[in-house]
Amino acid sequence: MPASADKHILKNISGFPEFSPEAQILFNQVIAKIREAYEGCGAIPIETSAVERTSHILAKGGNDKEIYGLHRLQDASDSAAKDYALHFDLTLPLARYVAQNGHRLVFPFKRYQIQPVWRGERAQNKRYRQFYQCDVDVIGDGQLSLLYDAEIPAVIYQIFSSLEIGAFVIRINNRKVLKGILNHFGIQGDAAELEALNIIDDLEKTGLEDVTQRLTALGADPKALSAITGFFSINGPVNAILNELQALDYGETFSQGVTELTTVCTAITAFGVPATAFKIDLSIARGLDYYTGTVYETQLLSNPSIGSICSGGRYDNLAENFSKKRYPGVGISIGLSRLLGELIEKQILTVGPQSIAPVLVTVIDQSKMTHYLALTAQLRTAGIKTEIYLEPKKLKNQLAHANKKGIKIALIAGETEFEHDEILVKDLRQQTQQSIPTGKLVPYIQSLLAI
Amino acid sequence: MPASADKHILKNISGFPEFSPEAQILFNQVIAKIREAYEGCGAIPIETSAVERTSHILAKGGNDKEIYGLHRLQDASDSAAKDYALHFDLTLPLARYVAQNGHRLVFPFKRYQIQPVWRGERAQNKRYRQFYQCDVDVIGDGQLSLLYDAEIPAVIYQIFSSLEIGAFVIRINNRKVLKGILNHFGIQGDAAELEALNIIDDLEKTGLEDVTQRLTALGADPKALSAITGFFSINGPVNAILNELQALDYGETFSQGVTELTTVCTAITAFGVPATAFKIDLSIARGLDYYTGTVYETQLLSNPSIGSICSGGRYDNLAENFSKKRYPGVGISIGLSRLLGELIEKQILTVGPQSIAPVLVTVIDQSKMTHYLALTAQLRTAGIKTEIYLEPKKLKNQLAHANKKGIKIALIAGETEFEHDEILVKDLRQQTQQSIPTGKLVPYIQSLLAI
Repeated sequence: MPASADKHILKNISGFPEFSPEAQILFNQVIAKIREAYEGCGAIPIETSAVERTSHILAKGGNDKEIYGLHRLQDASDSAAKDYALHFDLTLPLARYVAQNGHRLVFPFKRYQIQPVWRGERAQNKRYRQFYQCDVDVIGDGQLSLLYDAEIPAVIYQIFSSLEIGAFVIRINNRKVLKGILNHFGIQGDAAELEALNIIDDLEKTGLEDVTQRLTALGADPKALSAITGFFSINGPVNAILNELQALDYGETFSQGVTELTTVCTAITAFGVPATAFKIDLSIARGLDYYTGTVYETQLLSNPSIGSICSGGRYDNLAENFSKKRYPGVGISIGLSRLLGELIEKQILTVGPQSIAPVLVTVIDQSKMTHYLALTAQLRTAGIKTEIYLEPKKLKNQLAHANKKGIKIALIAGETEFEHDEILVKDLRQQTQQSIPTGKLVPYIQSLLAI
Repeated sequence: MPASADKHILKNISGFPEFSPEAQILFNQVIAKIREAYEGCGAIPIETSAVERTSHILAKGGNDKEIYGLHRLQDASDSAAKDYALHFDLTLPLARYVAQNGHRLVFPFKRYQIQPVWRGERAQNKRYRQFYQCDVDVIGDGQLSLLYDAEIPAVIYQIFSSLEIGAFVIRINNRKVLKGILNHFGIQGDAAELEALNIIDDLEKTGLEDVTQRLTALGADPKALSAITGFFSINGPVNAILNELQALDYGETFSQGVTELTTVCTAITAFGVPATAFKIDLSIARGLDYYTGTVYETQLLSNPSIGSICSGGRYDNLAENFSKKRYPGVGISIGLSRLLGELIEKQILTVGPQSIAPVLVTVIDQSKMTHYLALTAQLRTAGIKTEIYLEPKKLKNQLAHANKKGIKIALIAGETEFEHDEILVKDLRQQTQQSIPTGKLVPYIQSLLAI
């Protein structure tokens, strides 16, 4: 791990990393860009409680080895707390929230949610036990147009373009296409299909031969080996892949998947996502999840080893464990804590200084303190983020403080300056300085900061 | 509870309330203003893990009846998780963070932290078990100028002015003043002093007679009754109170407290806080906390029953349980979840519509879908938050959707409009509409939204 990562991803309790203030500033900037993209497409925020009922979490298939339950440290009789557990994702809470509050919500309900989640996994390389998820989903009341499946990649494209982390590609597939070909070649039933999807998910890791062998072992018709191999070898531009798929006759589900994929890809282009930023990848299965149609993963081309930086898909029935109503939806999740750690470690994003305020008011004459405080207040009122150095230290030490924090501008004034109603403005980046009349100080600083 | 509050503060698990999307939008706006004020004074963000070591929490005096410990649901052998507990405030985590990372931080270290905390209190009227705290603190390395105690009220003033929730007053006192008078009249020692501070905290609730009686029972010289009564009756403008206090001779600690109070109040004024927004209140004790000098509470004048909306103070040694180094500090905390609930319930803040995006693109001709998607992308690229209605519904239903969500502008176009390169822009607030050439659409919408 390069020194920069070690310096900014702090260690306290294993699996519960914390950031340095500099890295936290960067983290907040990234969150702001994600929020902007989510709100830009019309999503509204919700936050759910960190705690869900244990019974709900387990009913929805939560892995009880990874769920943190709560108990009061000293109150054995407190049975209520025993039914509380920390949420392990933001989808189950969304399902419960929509089922409970559906009558207050306007559908299609497009919500985003940016919160930490907890998974008590064995601490491994880069597996965090607490990490932020940044989710956006569109939920329909009874039905939801397939075109929302195309809006999601448009949002992904905006986020990762604005983050300036290099070229990326959104890889798109459709579960019905996979289910269709599996059924066609003899793999039937939920359990076998799920296992097959997990095998297909390994394609990039273990290779085509391994995958076809394992699918055959699972029940795929041995005579279909070359057809299956052919299918997973399909590659190329979106339209070429669609043409190849349209020529295959693997049954109704398969055809429906191909039609969906065609509609979605056409609409993604209409939404302005360039052809270089998305592709069809028939090996994307998202095996463990509850998806039923479109699925997405996103890969950073410079660092594919990071894995998918943003994943999601379409599901038929969000709240089946909580409501008799049918709520289909489509959405994605960004696991931001781990992603930011990787981006810092691989020096794709650079951590800046330990400051947000660009201006430091120094104090060189304690007897004029009210002047310094009033000057500080004047700048803050004008919207200029300003720190004032109130420890009784030499100017040299105060400027060293500013430099250590990466502060851009220091203001210096003593008796003479206050008498003449002017302030010495020192640009610490350029090592230049100029005396400015107090009345012109705000616009002068604003112009300096615009550079 | 008025319907508005019931509608926006949703019920799930008792003590873990959630907001409606509309209330969450308001919550986020309030957070943004608090963040702006904190960053405006030069504070930088940190976030600590939700989890601390149980041993740390209990060492620092956490109330073990209120602390939620963690355990994996199915893993009795997992002893590690048994040492994890959810933090109950943000001060203990700050102390641990500063002790661990002090060598990487630039001092004075001014940090803010906005995160949920958890307290397993018995669910009572408006006591939440999960709630947001918004803290700002300045931490010194070995020493910290008293003038930072004056900067904190300047920040409080900015926050609550910008929230436009009516007149408020920051009530300021100094623990040394209280300790001085207690010692002078016979109440000595940490335990007795702490008890006396809790009694003084009750002054507003139980009245002066009750407080003086209880202080006498605790060991205060019965002959001092009238002096104590006189002291707690001191009231008036800041300078009048300071003059009265300066005339009293209750020993060295008392005098030091009065000197500190004088310095702090002078600097608060220099920071631009108007005289109407702060006062000295000798009954403010903040008994349960670890404060050693200045203490603050803030009261909303229209609704004093809400209690203090922002409290804090100066402490001598932040990290005494974690470090041999001395870190004095001063800071405040805003318990935002409960505060926002109160402000909504008392209709001091009004919850807005269930939308952030001001524009809805309607779809009236499915065969022109790529046009609608491109139009949407064009607006989003220009920074206009835009929703597109993709369900195949009648225009009437689409406009009803916009109205239910409080969306301001609907765009309508069919074959004719696309042929003529123009869009019908409908202002849903004014019920007016106008055809605008596509090339002028962005500036036209921007000008409409500026109204």
